[in-house]
Amino acid sequence: MIANKLKSLWAAGKPTINGWCSIGNPFTAEIMAAQGFDSITIDMQHGALDYSALLPMFQAMRASGVTLMARVPWNEPGIIMKALDAGAYGIICPMVNTAEDAARFVSYLRYPPHGQRSFGPTRVSFAAGANYAGEANDNILAFAMIETAEGMANLDAIAATPGLDGIYVGPADLTLSLTQGRLAPGFDREEPEMIAALQTILAACKKNGLRAALHCGAPDYAARAIGWGFDMTTVGGDSRFLAAAAGAAVAGFRKLTEGQFVKTEKGAY
Amino acid sequence: MIANKLKSLWAAGKPTINGWCSIGNPFTAEIMAAQGFDSITIDMQHGALDYSALLPMFQAMRASGVTLMARVPWNEPGIIMKALDAGAYGIICPMVNTAEDAARFVSYLRYPPHGQRSFGPTRVSFAAGANYAGEANDNILAFAMIETAEGMANLDAIAATPGLDGIYVGPADLTLSLTQGRLAPGFDREEPEMIAALQTILAACKKNGLRAALHCGAPDYAARAIGWGFDMTTVGGDSRFLAAAAGAAVAGFRKLTEGQFVKTEKGAY
Amino acid sequence: MIANKLKSLWAAGKPTINGWCSIGNPFTAEIMAAQGFDSITIDMQHGALDYSALLPMFQAMRASGVTLMARVPWNEPGIIMKALDAGAYGIICPMVNTAEDAARFVSYLRYPPHGQRSFGPTRVSFAAGANYAGEANDNILAFAMIETAEGMANLDAIAATPGLDGIYVGPADLTLSLTQGRLAPGFDREEPEMIAALQTILAACKKNGLRAALHCGAPDYAARAIGWGFDMTTVGGDSRFLAAAAGAAVAGFRKLTEGQFVKTEKGAY
Amino acid sequence: MIANKLKSLWAAGKPTINGWCSIGNPFTAEIMAAQGFDSITIDMQHGALDYSALLPMFQAMRASGVTLMARVPWNEPGIIMKALDAGAYGIICPMVNTAEDAARFVSYLRYPPHGQRSFGPTRVSFAAGANYAGEANDNILAFAMIETAEGMANLDAIAATPGLDGIYVGPADLTLSLTQGRLAPGFDREEPEMIAALQTILAACKKNGLRAALHCGAPDYAARAIGWGFDMTTVGGDSRFLAAAAGAAVAGFRKLTEGQFVKTEKGAY
Amino acid sequence: MIANKLKSLWAAGKPTINGWCSIGNPFTAEIMAAQGFDSITIDMQHGALDYSALLPMFQAMRASGVTLMARVPWNEPGIIMKALDAGAYGIICPMVNTAEDAARFVSYLRYPPHGQRSFGPTRVSFAAGANYAGEANDNILAFAMIETAEGMANLDAIAATPGLDGIYVGPADLTLSLTQGRLAPGFDREEPEMIAALQTILAACKKNGLRAALHCGAPDYAARAIGWGFDMTTVGGDSRFLAAAAGAAVAGFRKLTEGQFVKTEKGAY
Amino acid sequence: MIANKLKSLWAAGKPTINGWCSIGNPFTAEIMAAQGFDSITIDMQHGALDYSALLPMFQAMRASGVTLMARVPWNEPGIIMKALDAGAYGIICPMVNTAEDAARFVSYLRYPPHGQRSFGPTRVSFAAGANYAGEANDNILAFAMIETAEGMANLDAIAATPGLDGIYVGPADLTLSLTQGRLAPGFDREEPEMIAALQTILAACKKNGLRAALHCGAPDYAARAIGWGFDMTTVGGDSRFLAAAAGAAVAGFRKLTEGQFVKTEKGAY
Repeated sequence: MIANKLKSLWAAGKPTINGWCSIGNPFTAEIMAAQGFDSITIDMQHGALDYSALLPMFQAMRASGVTLMARVPWNEPGIIMKALDAGAYGIICPMVNTAEDAARFVSYLRYPPHGQRSFGPTRVSFAAGANYAGEANDNILAFAMIETAEGMANLDAIAATPGLDGIYVGPADLTLSLTQGRLAPGFDREEPEMIAALQTILAACKKNGLRAALHCGAPDYAARAIGWGFDMTTVGGDSRFLAAAAGAAVAGFRKLTEGQFVKTEKGAY
Repeated sequence: MIANKLKSLWAAGKPTINGWCSIGNPFTAEIMAAQGFDSITIDMQHGALDYSALLPMFQAMRASGVTLMARVPWNEPGIIMKALDAGAYGIICPMVNTAEDAARFVSYLRYPPHGQRSFGPTRVSFAAGANYAGEANDNILAFAMIETAEGMANLDAIAATPGLDGIYVGPADLTLSLTQGRLAPGFDREEPEMIAALQTILAACKKNGLRAALHCGAPDYAARAIGWGFDMTTVGGDSRFLAAAAGAAVAGFRKLTEGQFVKTEKGAY
Repeated sequence: MIANKLKSLWAAGKPTINGWCSIGNPFTAEIMAAQGFDSITIDMQHGALDYSALLPMFQAMRASGVTLMARVPWNEPGIIMKALDAGAYGIICPMVNTAEDAARFVSYLRYPPHGQRSFGPTRVSFAAGANYAGEANDNILAFAMIETAEGMANLDAIAATPGLDGIYVGPADLTLSLTQGRLAPGFDREEPEMIAALQTILAACKKNGLRAALHCGAPDYAARAIGWGFDMTTVGGDSRFLAAAAGAAVAGFRKLTEGQFVKTEKGAY
Repeated sequence: MIANKLKSLWAAGKPTINGWCSIGNPFTAEIMAAQGFDSITIDMQHGALDYSALLPMFQAMRASGVTLMARVPWNEPGIIMKALDAGAYGIICPMVNTAEDAARFVSYLRYPPHGQRSFGPTRVSFAAGANYAGEANDNILAFAMIETAEGMANLDAIAATPGLDGIYVGPADLTLSLTQGRLAPGFDREEPEMIAALQTILAACKKNGLRAALHCGAPDYAARAIGWGFDMTTVGGDSRFLAAAAGAAVAGFRKLTEGQFVKTEKGAY
Repeated sequence: MIANKLKSLWAAGKPTINGWCSIGNPFTAEIMAAQGFDSITIDMQHGALDYSALLPMFQAMRASGVTLMARVPWNEPGIIMKALDAGAYGIICPMVNTAEDAARFVSYLRYPPHGQRSFGPTRVSFAAGANYAGEANDNILAFAMIETAEGMANLDAIAATPGLDGIYVGPADLTLSLTQGRLAPGFDREEPEMIAALQTILAACKKNGLRAALHCGAPDYAARAIGWGFDMTTVGGDSRFLAAAAGAAVAGFRKLTEGQFVKTEKGAY
Repeated sequence: MIANKLKSLWAAGKPTINGWCSIGNPFTAEIMAAQGFDSITIDMQHGALDYSALLPMFQAMRASGVTLMARVPWNEPGIIMKALDAGAYGIICPMVNTAEDAARFVSYLRYPPHGQRSFGPTRVSFAAGANYAGEANDNILAFAMIETAEGMANLDAIAATPGLDGIYVGPADLTLSLTQGRLAPGFDREEPEMIAALQTILAACKKNGLRAALHCGAPDYAARAIGWGFDMTTVGGDSRFLAAAAGAAVAGFRKLTEGQFVKTEKGAY
């Protein structure tokens, strides 16, 4: 089986950058996979896509060699196992609030005797190479999202879950839940209480030998998070990149052409 | 019928900015349509899409009120009429090299007695409003692309085609053809010979009461073109916007985290 | 955020008519959205479609201004939240049989502190306008379906669920369940026992300040239901409309051409 | 090869009714195929669909036993042969204006020595049964559309084309072209000049042993056309059926509930 | 309702062969349905497909008359009922480990009073014929998969579940689970301990009047299983058939052309 | 630009085997690409697919490193250029009957000054690597199909077309056309007149420095063709592989279970 590159990068002490796909299209996936990310995660939860888009996107990105992951819509075995069979080398699971949630989640990713994943790598075995059955348990990454007050309360128990590889922090939901809606959701939090929460999660990861990952909106915040000790950061996402770049082009044009008028020789069209 | 806004903008002396879609997806189309472009063109020629993507993209962009156009793969009646029936308010036709090409092209866009378009606005009538049959001939824009040496040689005859609304310049092909491959293709040409060619086309447009449009790569070049007298410029395109913005995020992260190492408390993972 | 029009119509005392989409196609959705319904619900449960069709259908209907809703396949957080992120302004949830079912359902639709919906309006924010995070909880409608004997037994407790907006009655399932299969499923029930059940549900709605909605097959029954006090009725659905109208055309042709023979001058073909 | 049922119905002197699909969806196709039409034509020209929808629609209708046809976007060999390979038992070709057009069209439908169709019934042979190669030339129907003034002028020459099976009349385009836009396009013409044109075409068909087909909007006009001697009429179409039936339901509801108000016991919602 | 042919075949004492579809495509489904299988199961669990492919595949196979089934991703009511509404005459449910699992599973397939299936055969009623509501409970097959050590431990209780029609054995997962990963997963087991497990399951089926089905990789093993008393065997699957046959063609070519060189008269190309 | 491997294989004197895809699905494409073919051609002409399937299939096969080609539906510039932009490293064009056909075909594949291909490698540049503009003309293979009597009559003139890389022989059409339907179409011809035709084409290729390719049905015939001097042979195709292998499994099962009866302990089911 082709080994999980994230694991070797981290083992070598290198922080990694993860790309984020919310657009359900193989060509946007192929474009994203060409930009130098270490890994790319397809967002089946909040992205505008489902399994029927995930599969051709994974296929289109296979040639890039980028490590492919999926965030699933919920902690449900059906879709988690389908994402794995489609080719995911890692699963990010939202709303892991208790140790029991975490244990169930991990069990869906591991073949017996380490879990209850059902065997049938019909497609992934074409992409992952030989001996998938024997090596998948070691290569698939299990990231639990801590993003609620309940999850924070159970942080230590969650982080101690055998077989869990890391915690992925979703700052938008975490903010909503921790502040009970007092602070608006969003990435790249600057509020001390939110930074403290991130540090708390980071510490729990370090204590339990877990990888810590943070969803960020901009490279500078991501770099700060790496400085704090995070192993992986997501920076931006395809739909935001597209909107921002296209919007900037329009704004640039409007500013540069302000007050210009079309000159028509033959009069009104 | 809902009137073509490009026509009224130009009549008011306002230059317009056109967005360009090469990704075959309704969500990217919806994102693009929210960025402030006056019009958006779906590239059925070089874009990674065909009619089966064009239709839901037009549907997804309908709410935005942006004027929708299509560049067709070739000067063929079947696909031109399908793009119109799907909702296009303008067609950009590649490789118009002779006056006969231009006349054929225009005829495909106009119902009798002004052309030979076949009647059947099955879908477009849901989006374009009442009396499409009576007003489509006046609202649909016909843009011929001048992008070969042969097209330049026949420029005056092409520009004089009755019913033609404008010339759309594709700098990449025009460069390839005019220089017989001596210069590499690309947008935003700075070579005097290419700028001269653009000016020649622009003059032919002005002389014949045509709108002149230029495919550009960046806002500053587009603004220069508007200053020269172009009525419309395309700036960038969805696939380039996405690649550039995502690539910049990765580059920013790499630079900011250079030399940083992941600190793992419990040792090697 | 663009406000939910159903709420203002009801507040103004107006009964509303809901359209029903069982065909998974953006063009049929666009056609339906042009017929004057106040709202349109895409049936992810029994309709011949899933999320991959829901999204382009919502996009195609956006321009119409019709209020968009989805009936989900089951009371599961993953698909409910995906339907919301795709653009639903209301969710109809089947088989709500207990107060606990109803409470879980409502929690999936509300951001903290009123529920556990995860934040990520990647697509819906393009359609719903600014401040979705702040106003979604107030605009999204939660309809629980009462359609089993168990649901009837728990009617009062269900109707008292905080945050629930209404009860949607599915007469086919309700009949099957209440009569244990004695009566065949179907809409527009005339049996006294079934009308009594509808009245019981209606009374529970009124008592608890909930909106009451009924799935009907024909306008006259729908009008009767409005007369009883229902706030919203669904009338028919796209697949039934198509079948009925096409079948009537064939029947008309057959009747009108009965006994007519094709006359061929040159003899047998 | 499963024989073309239209041919045997006509041979038995029976007029036939053709269904029309403009919606690109296998489920709507399956619904249409259950309504009793003798044949169903998928409109690749003005319908909101292309080959990628045609194929699953043909597959979904195969079980019905209805004779399947396609109207192609234009008289082009590529798409005509693809429609045949996908399963069409008949092709309706738009805008056949000259005898040369008609001869080219017929040649695309016939294997040598009767034409130039390329051999490769990869999919159709699964649906059409054994010996497709040997019997396709006899079973595939070639319908040329006469719908322009030029086509009318060349009517006799077109009708005399060897291998042509019938003329299909498109009243909307024929009206536009014959009256040079004086009369609005539409079906079921009552103007004497248009009825005369239909009769002229019908006579040319009878004289040349061709089948005559007319696109109609309503059963009664279709029955009149059968009375005149037409062999086949199309009545309505899926998108119109859906719009009409759904629109009627809304209108019925609005009329029946006019002036009714929602009664809310607990006050304003 | 068109009766379930598997039931009549088994009643007549005939063993049946089931085809397996892991490729999400209507044309491959149509090809598979033409090969003589008694039934075909679309694998929604490990197959590279989901509901959006299942529906057109069922439609494309309808004409064949083959009995259609689906293996669902998990024991979840939403997707089980959707597969039934799409046209499945049988459901194979993975990972049924307890009698409670089995009872829940069966309840999802049966209308009241025998279960809790929700009524809405929007599409299936077009394929299954009249009186689906009245006869579906008798025609739909419920197959529970025994494929874990826990399932084996609860075998008798599972087999005694009222309304269950059969046990479907997945040898790969069963091997993994029973041996806790000691033996590699795969079909057509020869290890005595695994054959013993199959026999145990078979005996439980016979004792409880259930049909026994086994997933096999090759016809000879399938025939052995029939000899043991299994009622149905799956042999191979579309993706394996394609890979094996294509691989054999390449291997044949390589062997036959070994050492051959291309002879080019005009020298190096 | 990643170089065309077929060219280097042939330059090294190695015959190549081409795979053939008629199923429009990325997963079948991925399976085919894993079987060891030197090149794979997607059949846009007779395959059950169009551009909308071609693109994700090319993307899914990119990782394999197999050389990707397309057979286009017809000698039309629009679709030829779209297939190239999608990633084709070679085009097989059907029905090239004259030198003029051949010259037009070649011109569509080459950028100026060698042809009239329009520049816009929006997607292919992600797969083909740097400097596509400069090297595509040298890497793209142009194969003209000789498959009619007219093509045979013009063989020498066609073979002398500058820029043409090879002749691809379609034995089915060639047989139909040369014998005017006397012989049934099919591959692997044994009739002396057909073998003579193949040899004539082969000789014309050798004389003009062209590569000769033959569509075969089985490895042994392909090997014979290589022995005659052909450079490339296609062997079989995905739809035939699947049908043959699945059919053989059913036949094997039927034969092995003939006369076996299901033993039911508890009596008739």
